Amino acid sequence: MGFIILFGGNSFEHEISIVSAITIKKKLNNIDYFIFLDSSSKFYLIPSESMKSKHFATLSYKKDKELQLVNGGFLQKCIFGNKIISGVVINLIHGKSGEDGEIASLLSFYGLKFIGPRIEASVISFNKALTKDFAKNRGINVVDYQIFHKGDSVNNIQLPAIIKPLRLGSSIGISVVKNYDELEYALDVAFEFDDSIIVEHFISNVKEYNLAGFSLNGEIIFSMIEEVTKDEFLDFDKKYLDFNATNKPKKANLTQDIEDKVKNTFIAIYKNCFEGSLIRCDFFIIEDKVYLNEINPIPGSMASYLFDNFQEKIDLLALNLPHRNMIKIDYKYISKIQASKGK
Amino acid sequence: MGFIILFGGNSFEHEISIVSAITIKKKLNNIDYFIFLDSSSKFYLIPSESMKSKHFATLSYKKDKELQLVNGGFLQKCIFGNKIISGVVINLIHGKSGEDGEIASLLSFYGLKFIGPRIEASVISFNKALTKDFAKNRGINVVDYQIFHKGDSVNNIQLPAIIKPLRLGSSIGISVVKNYDELEYALDVAFEFDDSIIVEHFISNVKEYNLAGFSLNGEIIFSMIEEVTKDEFLDFDKKYLDFNATNKPKKANLTQDIEDKVKNTFIAIYKNCFEGSLIRCDFFIIEDKVYLNEINPIPGSMASYLFDNFQEKIDLLALNLPHRNMIKIDYKYISKIQASKGK
Repeated sequence: MGFIILFGGNSFEHEISIVSAITIKKKLNNIDYFIFLDSSSKFYLIPSESMKSKHFATLSYKKDKELQLVNGGFLQKCIFGNKIISGVVINLIHGKSGEDGEIASLLSFYGLKFIGPRIEASVISFNKALTKDFAKNRGINVVDYQIFHKGDSVNNIQLPAIIKPLRLGSSIGISVVKNYDELEYALDVAFEFDDSIIVEHFISNVKEYNLAGFSLNGEIIFSMIEEVTKDEFLDFDKKYLDFNATNKPKKANLTQDIEDKVKNTFIAIYKNCFEGSLIRCDFFIIEDKVYLNEINPIPGSMASYLFDNFQEKIDLLALNLPHRNMIKIDYKYISKIQASKGK
Repeated sequence: MGFIILFGGNSFEHEISIVSAITIKKKLNNIDYFIFLDSSSKFYLIPSESMKSKHFATLSYKKDKELQLVNGGFLQKCIFGNKIISGVVINLIHGKSGEDGEIASLLSFYGLKFIGPRIEASVISFNKALTKDFAKNRGINVVDYQIFHKGDSVNNIQLPAIIKPLRLGSSIGISVVKNYDELEYALDVAFEFDDSIIVEHFISNVKEYNLAGFSLNGEIIFSMIEEVTKDEFLDFDKKYLDFNATNKPKKANLTQDIEDKVKNTFIAIYKNCFEGSLIRCDFFIIEDKVYLNEINPIPGSMASYLFDNFQEKIDLLALNLPHRNMIKIDYKYISKIQASKGK
């Protein structure tokens, strides 16, 4: 069974997705196809040897073969008949279109098997307010927050605060505000990326941990737990300019009790929502309590750096994907109407 | 400007959607195309004169022209070149695929203008637990509820209770349970349709009201408020066998205060979420307090029976649809990485 890496997308994280795809190429030996989605909703089949960032930055990909999404796969038009490209898709489109449910919908609709969040899981993890409510309902701690829409007067904010666009990942548009004279600029930046923003109390020197995993027949397969080492908070450049670096993640040194709490929190998030995807959760630990910070339903390079034997694990996940529920249509109801009309 | 009526879908409400489309045909004089989605994700162009329920029940639609969704519209292959069918789509696919965000994703992705909920609004209104949380966060009253997943032991239920699949509309799979010996059967029925169910306290003789509306440049255009007349609760047959009937809805007789409360609740639900769609909200009034019961983001026949001059209103909505946010990709980040590598 071979993989299709789907990447790119109409998103602020378009370029991160390209880097993510280049990274994962080195991690898996059974990738059959790389399919690039450009920002105008066109799919291209990228030859493996062209998987270099320059190929995209110079727009050379436009000379590659264009594909059309159809039932069962991607259609490639050839001179001697057409070919359907199929396989298990790894949805590596970060941010909008990839993580907001759009790509999940397309792949489900056309009956492609894929690794990635389904529609509902996408929407819940993409909108940070929905994530918080979802977590609270499952008994998980989250940092308090306020939501503001464009045009609202933003006040009653407790400083220091962290200001984020409501629906973006990858630290884009995020600022920490310590003084009121920094607020306006931070709001402008965040509203550049979304019509709604989320304001949370900023806790300095908080310990942050990342844990990735996925479900295999109801049991969660975990990665190692990483302790995030960082300056205050990770901005876009710091987080991604060394994205492709070979630095090993720092293994967290937690008591058994805290480690169990972190893992149980992950399970509570994943179950009955994220099936079919490999997600990474970012947690805070504050006074021995675990807080969910963020769910990344399509983590950069699928968080491959956190797993031992990533190849084996992703192969297992690919064999255990949820099926689309097909509904049997029998036209009984219409027949009933016709009967009741005496026709 | 002409409309495309999109109906059918892979959903338990597939047949309701057909009836809905036949009904709306009589209400609008500028429908250019009827496009039917069968349960296997194929689109068909249905000639206007074939818009009869029998055409679908007998599978005659399979002889109609198949279409392919592409950038900008539906592609119709013709002997002398291809044609792209475009216009403003009215998404009339009820239930799964239409209301869960899948169709919204497809239409957005391929850049079609459409009337209907966007992805996030779809997911929020499709999952009754998300609807409740969403409403509560906006200061709206809802009836208390419990969620159970398949395999959970269902207890601590206060009777009488109403048991519903978590993610269906149109009263399918819903039961009122008054005695514990009815519980098991009701659970079996609900779990037929979803892996999760929602249990609410059942309030008998509650007054129920429907109000439809949509946003036009930030202002809500309302329908009349209908008082729902019914036996205890509407089951599928009662609700839909007279769907196409000419019975006038019963205009609600409310005090100005309650009418204002109902309208303000509608506005609080709609704003910053349902833009682009015409929705119908179902409310309970209990001791002069307004409770949200359900959001129908694609009401049967677009709730046309509740509006005066439906044609004029839907034409206005069609001219004021939200645009898809296109992201400018400049490959600055990738260039930065290349520069930092010294390439």
